[in-house]
Amino acid sequence: MFAIGFDITPVSHEFDDEIQSIIDNKTKPLGALGELEHLAKQIARVLGKDQPKISNPKLLVFAADHGISAFGVSIAPSEVTTQMVVNFINGGAAINVFCRQVGFDLEVIDCGILKPLEGVDGIIDQRLGAGTAPIHRQAAMPLKSVMQGMEMARERVEYHHQQGCNLIALGEMGIGNTSSAAAIMATLMEMDCIDCVGRGTGIDADTLKHKQTLVEQALHIHESELTDPYNILACLGGFEIVQMTGAMLAAAERNMLVIIDGFIATAAALLAVKINPNVRDYMIFGHQSDERGHCLMMEHLHARPLLKLDMRLGEGSGAALSLPIIQAAAAFYNEMASFSDAGIEI
Amino acid sequence: MFAIGFDITPVSHEFDDEIQSIIDNKTKPLGALGELEHLAKQIARVLGKDQPKISNPKLLVFAADHGISAFGVSIAPSEVTTQMVVNFINGGAAINVFCRQVGFDLEVIDCGILKPLEGVDGIIDQRLGAGTAPIHRQAAMPLKSVMQGMEMARERVEYHHQQGCNLIALGEMGIGNTSSAAAIMATLMEMDCIDCVGRGTGIDADTLKHKQTLVEQALHIHESELTDPYNILACLGGFEIVQMTGAMLAAAERNMLVIIDGFIATAAALLAVKINPNVRDYMIFGHQSDERGHCLMMEHLHARPLLKLDMRLGEGSGAALSLPIIQAAAAFYNEMASFSDAGIEI
Repeated sequence: MFAIGFDITPVSHEFDDEIQSIIDNKTKPLGALGELEHLAKQIARVLGKDQPKISNPKLLVFAADHGISAFGVSIAPSEVTTQMVVNFINGGAAINVFCRQVGFDLEVIDCGILKPLEGVDGIIDQRLGAGTAPIHRQAAMPLKSVMQGMEMARERVEYHHQQGCNLIALGEMGIGNTSSAAAIMATLMEMDCIDCVGRGTGIDADTLKHKQTLVEQALHIHESELTDPYNILACLGGFEIVQMTGAMLAAAERNMLVIIDGFIATAAALLAVKINPNVRDYMIFGHQSDERGHCLMMEHLHARPLLKLDMRLGEGSGAALSLPIIQAAAAFYNEMASFSDAGIEI
Repeated sequence: MFAIGFDITPVSHEFDDEIQSIIDNKTKPLGALGELEHLAKQIARVLGKDQPKISNPKLLVFAADHGISAFGVSIAPSEVTTQMVVNFINGGAAINVFCRQVGFDLEVIDCGILKPLEGVDGIIDQRLGAGTAPIHRQAAMPLKSVMQGMEMARERVEYHHQQGCNLIALGEMGIGNTSSAAAIMATLMEMDCIDCVGRGTGIDADTLKHKQTLVEQALHIHESELTDPYNILACLGGFEIVQMTGAMLAAAERNMLVIIDGFIATAAALLAVKINPNVRDYMIFGHQSDERGHCLMMEHLHARPLLKLDMRLGEGSGAALSLPIIQAAAAFYNEMASFSDAGIEI
């Protein structure tokens, strides 16, 4: 297998007892902070047991276009990807509002939308092409684009790491990308297409049926090629899915936490875990999407999302909204008084 | 019935179409922000449709002691209520950490802990006594204490309203208060005690059985008196539950949003809704507690909590953690670009 190596250290469990004891000695009944206690433990394992702090959190939105979107699988045409990218740059989308709200720094990465944006500042150019080929007819991209995209994502994550960032969240924009993600899910989880293909941003029953047919066709024509994560990405991927997969692996390589959110990012997470299972230790799951199939992917990854707010927007919106909860977990671990601090005997 | 009148205007639905249209024209697929869209609608109805802003959010923690706690229903003795109040004042409890994290201003109110705290600044004195009487033997308090507590809570809420606060959240601290809340739940929802009494902050199976017996006994001895919310509070209440009930009603009276969180506050919400059903329009439910019975109270109130993180701490911890989501709902409504703003045609 032609592959990029990702050198990820599994998180150490050396200090688990000490971490648990710090948590248990906080002024609260044992276990009373529920999910936040699990989260604090993960943060302490990844960022260190002594006053772990989330610094310079960054939300990267990966945008790309999909050849399949010209074949009636979505409520909107491919052009909307570009229009939404402009909306991100201008600060008017949901993800802009949420990032401002919670203190996430937002970066928009062009992984391969239809045309490069001329005269627009503030977009990171990591283009792998002008949209993928339609996956139900041919491979989405050559294998070398997969490798190139992963390397680009790794470099970008390393750049942020050097700037002092230790948590990244991943969002995406790409009309048609739920088709690609569903095909990846069906392949990796060995499931029927019908259980993986959902309504995306809101298609009707007829369009859903058509979308299922095209995704089935994609799986059928590539069947013999779907042998490893890199070839799966080449056949079925989107440019943004390639780069999200690479970004997750690169983040784990640098001991950074990574928030996974939504159907597309979770499909990338399946691929990342397949490439290197150690990456799982660094993942936090932000929001359970309303998209059919997302719930099953979560179970497959033994993941429990922090939020369930029936959103189905993408952009990393659920990841952004989960940041305050993650910060609260770190804060209680770092700042709460212990029983002995407070002079309380229970 | 001797009662305090709360003059609560039901929220107006006059602008519902306009509010919905503002939400639907934001640059996102229809309905794609799920629960946040419902929340934005409620915020716009309560605080006004034009740029509604949450201002000076305040979290009030109501503390009090409970006579029943001397009879082995809890993991901790009554003294811990006072110790935790001191912890709140010193900034070391979970609720302090979370309030700092999300930008809530915290206020601690002594509604009747065992002894008044000497030489401790920063606690609001609204004492109704030195702990309630044990409810399985006699009435918790005289009816006039219920009235007095409600008036005190109303005055405090009005004070904050005058300071420009339009959202309050309610937390509590009181060893033994799940017994009181369970008794209130069983009465108002006409349910068996066994389905209302839970493990509180973590009692074992034998203590749980004992707690159920005492709560049953409380319901039995007061049976003929449990005719209206005020007498229910006098027989079964805690001083903090009285004041939380009053605070909810007072907040609604002043057109303020109120975040309900946890088993105790939700029992108070049941009483508040019984006193004046219009209060329901102003309530936001922060977190689904892990305490048995909380889920059933939520259903009874047709409430859907924003968070479900398996916490069972009280203090208003879940309310604090839900504030960023509530603010995000207001922010998307106020700040997101519309399709026409962004020049996108779908």
